[in-house]
Amino acid sequence: MKPTGAPSRPVRVRRVRNGEVRRERDAVATEEPLEVRVAWIDPATGERRAEAVAVTMRTPGHDYELAAGFLSGEGVLARPEHLHEITYCRSGRGPQEYNVVEARLHPGVSFDLERVRRNVYTTSSCGVCGKASLDAVEALGYPILDDDGWSMDPDLIPGLPDRLMAEQGVFQRTGGLHAAGLFDATGTLDVLREDVGRHNAVDKVVGRRVLDGRLPAPDRVLVVSGRASFELVQKAVAAGIPMLVAVGAPSSLAVDLAERFGLTLVGFARDGGFNVYSGAARLGL
Amino acid sequence: MKPTGAPSRPVRVRRVRNGEVRRERDAVATEEPLEVRVAWIDPATGERRAEAVAVTMRTPGHDYELAAGFLSGEGVLARPEHLHEITYCRSGRGPQEYNVVEARLHPGVSFDLERVRRNVYTTSSCGVCGKASLDAVEALGYPILDDDGWSMDPDLIPGLPDRLMAEQGVFQRTGGLHAAGLFDATGTLDVLREDVGRHNAVDKVVGRRVLDGRLPAPDRVLVVSGRASFELVQKAVAAGIPMLVAVGAPSSLAVDLAERFGLTLVGFARDGGFNVYSGAARLGL
Repeated sequence: MKPTGAPSRPVRVRRVRNGEVRRERDAVATEEPLEVRVAWIDPATGERRAEAVAVTMRTPGHDYELAAGFLSGEGVLARPEHLHEITYCRSGRGPQEYNVVEARLHPGVSFDLERVRRNVYTTSSCGVCGKASLDAVEALGYPILDDDGWSMDPDLIPGLPDRLMAEQGVFQRTGGLHAAGLFDATGTLDVLREDVGRHNAVDKVVGRRVLDGRLPAPDRVLVVSGRASFELVQKAVAAGIPMLVAVGAPSSLAVDLAERFGLTLVGFARDGGFNVYSGAARLGL
Repeated sequence: MKPTGAPSRPVRVRRVRNGEVRRERDAVATEEPLEVRVAWIDPATGERRAEAVAVTMRTPGHDYELAAGFLSGEGVLARPEHLHEITYCRSGRGPQEYNVVEARLHPGVSFDLERVRRNVYTTSSCGVCGKASLDAVEALGYPILDDDGWSMDPDLIPGLPDRLMAEQGVFQRTGGLHAAGLFDATGTLDVLREDVGRHNAVDKVVGRRVLDGRLPAPDRVLVVSGRASFELVQKAVAAGIPMLVAVGAPSSLAVDLAERFGLTLVGFARDGGFNVYSGAARLGL
C-alpha cells in the first residue's frame, strides 16, 4: 500500500476556559475528498473502461479498504474475488495524488455503471418511502442473515465501545473521529478504523475483509461509535455481519431493515447497559 | 403547511442493565427518504419542467424548510425571492405522500439542472483535493463574510449548546437526533430544528430563513450538536451566517474553508469552554 496523507493536521487555536484565553497548537482530523473509480472490460466492445462512481469526504489512510468496502456494499464487488487489483490513480502530481483510487474488476465480472450511479430510492417504482428503501436493499440480492446458532455472551456487549475508544489513535489527538471495529464472539478486536465519516469507518473495516478475501463475516460483530442509521445497517447486511452494536440510538428505518434481514441490532451500548431492537436470540435474550 | 409523518415512532426493546433484562416500549427517531424536486420554466422551449435533484434520509417534519435550505445551499435559490412556491408533490396515496417536495422557481429564474446534479468535486479541472473542494465552493459565488464589526460576547458561547439541548423535544424521547439552532448576538434562540442527519438539521434552520425571506443572516450564529465538517461550514457560508459553533471537533477542511470565507469557527463548545479556529475577532479574542 502506498503512503497517504496524514490523518491529522496541526492548527493554531485560541483555547478559552473560564474566560481565560490561551493560544496553542492543536490537531484536527484531516478531511479530504476521495474519488472511487471502477475499471472493467466492456463485454460489448472488449475495451477497457474506467469511470468514477463516487466521491466521499474522508480522512486519508486505508483508502484501498475504503474503496473496496464501499464497492462491496454497493454490490459492485458481490464477492471479494471479483476484485483484480486496487491502486491509486496518479495521473498528476501534487496533493491530489492520493485522492483517487481505482478498483479493477476481473475480466468477465459484469458491471452496470448506471445502476451504481442511480440513487436506489429515486428509481423505485413504488415511490419514495421507507418501504421502498427496504425493498431497494432487498433488490440488491443480499441474503437474509443465517440463524445458525452463532451467539455472543451479552455480558461482553457493554465493554465493546470502551475497547473501541481505547484503541482510537487519531481520536486521542483530535477528538474528532468516528470509529468502527470488528470483534469476534469472545470480544476480541479484529480490526479498527477511524474516519470523519462514520460510513467511511465502516467501509474501511469491511474493505479490510474484502482485501483479505474473508467476506461474508458470519461470526463477527460490528461496533460503531455513533448512531445506527439505515445506511449502516445496510452495510452490515451487505457484509454478512450478523450483529451491529452502536453507542448511540438507532433510527426507525435502521430497526426495520435489521428486522427484515435478521440482523441483531443493539443501541445505547454504554454506561454498563444496552438496548436490543431486533435479533435478541443471538444474545440469548 | 401540510401534516407530515411523526418524528418518532414506538418500538419494542429489551433493555439490559447490570445483567437484568426488561421488555419495554421505547421510541426511535423516524428516518424516511425525502426527494427534493425543482420545477422551472425552460427558457429555450417555454415549457414547465420538473426534475428530482436529491434524495436525503431525513426525519419527517419541516420538509419545506429542508428543501428550501438545501436548494439555497446548492445555489439554486441564490435569493429567497427566487422561490415561487413549495409544496408536497402527492402523485399517489400511501406512505410516500409526504416524501416528495417540489420547489417551483419564479418564471425567469435560471436553473442549470446538470450543474446541480454534478458532484462539484469530480468535475473540478484541478483534480480531487482539498484545495479543489475549496475552489469549488468559491466558484458557487458566495461572498466573503463581512467584517463589519458584528460581534458576540465570548462568555455567551459555552451556554449555547446547553440551550440547544434543553429545547430538543424529539431528542428527549429518542436520544437519537442532531440539532441545529440559530441564535442572535444576545444568545437568544431564534429557531431550532432536529434531524437524524446533521446536514438536514442545518438545512431546516436555513430553510426557515429562506421561507421568511430573511437570508443572508449576517447577525446570527449557527450552533450544531455534532462536529463541524466541510459541508456544514459550506452551508453557513452559503447562508451568510458569520459564526458556526459546534459541540464537537472541526475537520481540517472545515478550518480551511472557514478561513477562506472569514467565518468564525468555534469547536468543543462544552464544559464551560470552547476553542476558536478562525475569525476570533468577532469574539473580541
